[in-house]
Amino acid sequence: MHSLASYERTRGVAMTSALDRLSLNQATVNKLTVAEAVDLCVRHDIPAIGLWREHVADAGLESAAAAVRAAGLHVSSLCRGGFFTPADPAARKAALEDNKAAIAEAAALGTDTLVLVSGGLVPGNRDIALARRLIADAIADLVPVAQAHGVRLAIEALHPMFAADRCVITRLGEALDLALTFPADAVGVVVDTYHVWWDAALLADIARAGERIVSYQVCDWILPLPANTLLGRGHVGDGHIDFPPITAAVAAAGYAGYIEVEIFNEAIWNTPADETAKKLRTTFPQAF
Amino acid sequence: MHSLASYERTRGVAMTSALDRLSLNQATVNKLTVAEAVDLCVRHDIPAIGLWREHVADAGLESAAAAVRAAGLHVSSLCRGGFFTPADPAARKAALEDNKAAIAEAAALGTDTLVLVSGGLVPGNRDIALARRLIADAIADLVPVAQAHGVRLAIEALHPMFAADRCVITRLGEALDLALTFPADAVGVVVDTYHVWWDAALLADIARAGERIVSYQVCDWILPLPANTLLGRGHVGDGHIDFPPITAAVAAAGYAGYIEVEIFNEAIWNTPADETAKKLRTTFPQAF
Repeated sequence: MHSLASYERTRGVAMTSALDRLSLNQATVNKLTVAEAVDLCVRHDIPAIGLWREHVADAGLESAAAAVRAAGLHVSSLCRGGFFTPADPAARKAALEDNKAAIAEAAALGTDTLVLVSGGLVPGNRDIALARRLIADAIADLVPVAQAHGVRLAIEALHPMFAADRCVITRLGEALDLALTFPADAVGVVVDTYHVWWDAALLADIARAGERIVSYQVCDWILPLPANTLLGRGHVGDGHIDFPPITAAVAAAGYAGYIEVEIFNEAIWNTPADETAKKLRTTFPQAF
Repeated sequence: MHSLASYERTRGVAMTSALDRLSLNQATVNKLTVAEAVDLCVRHDIPAIGLWREHVADAGLESAAAAVRAAGLHVSSLCRGGFFTPADPAARKAALEDNKAAIAEAAALGTDTLVLVSGGLVPGNRDIALARRLIADAIADLVPVAQAHGVRLAIEALHPMFAADRCVITRLGEALDLALTFPADAVGVVVDTYHVWWDAALLADIARAGERIVSYQVCDWILPLPANTLLGRGHVGDGHIDFPPITAAVAAAGYAGYIEVEIFNEAIWNTPADETAKKLRTTFPQAF
């Protein structure tokens, strides 16, 4: 199965309304199992889902794949591979093997997109260029595996506040420059508004990315940041991000696939999932 | 009085040791008055100080200027002007007038460098390009005033986590592109390791900045971020930043002036200032 973007490119079919492009990233309803998240999408007419490996493992790969297939849901991406920068060579080798497994899981789940959070500084080493080289080398090793499975590795730039501990790739332009060193059928980039909205070069980099954009994720930048900075994201419209110009640029670059709403937020996790799903359907059109 | 950088360029005098270039930014000992901070520098053989307007106002401008002069201290910069992005035109006009006053204060204090924190999104408006245009317009208005006083406006890129509420200029390259639209005797850039260390283009942008670098500030990126993200900075060597390549790039670009240690950190503010000064003298050489 391929993403709707490739389907559309092949068949010339256009989607008719914003909500037809909504995908629920499972992180938004992090307390739900795969089966529960799938049911939620069905109940609220959400046509696609972005799955997380931990939840898929809890459900069992075949069972998770069967659940989304039976529901007729598209799987817009699998989150996530990456974390290529352990200090210990054996740990780096293990990370590589784990990423190969993730590629196979993505294919089994019917998605052609595996999101990569590439990793922070090598522990005990402040050389950020070294971390970047390890990431490039790891992706190079994964390219043939990705191609064999028909899965694209989607390099995600994370907000610079996560550079030390999660991802040294901090700008869309940087992710793109790395992706461009590999074949387009194997490596692309994610545009996640939360991580890149502040960048003066964003719109130019989106235009430059073109078909390399394989995933578009939205959520809002809200203040103040919480103590756990991983969980500070908001619903579209609740924060400071100007979505329409970014969404328009992504569309102009040729991306016509699903748009995942991915919100890490403790308060939203503690909200009944049906309320969250309703809110997504209300707020999502504001991203256009 | 001009900065040591200009003095050195004029006279061909080179400083002999790292500690000769140390400047105490007053924010590092935020609970001290100007007189107390000046005495601290004298006691610990710190040759320069970066002053803050609030503290200068508390001391009285003439009294503060007399204190640093009597102590034989160089004033490496005045912090800070900026905040050009209020929604209300009258408030923007008031910000401009306040910045003109800051330029005059810098000159009176014997420094040729006024650091600018340019301002976040216009309140109630998510258009980040609008905020950037207001900043460019404000700096254009200030250029003749800066030139008349022999003061350079030092545009500081702040970490993107402050883009919404403090400064939409988030990368050294962006600050530089803006500075380059104005005369070099009036507008330059600050390189502050805390804000820009994560940027893959950093070393290239430093090289490109050349003589536009008018201030170099150091402190370290430590984790976890505190609840108040403004106060999460660490002593050089306590965190994740690889200083020597950055310091070498700044030197290669031609900057030979003082290097300010500017650490916003509640725990450090609560440490006896003499301990902090001793620690600065111990840690500062690790930036080279």
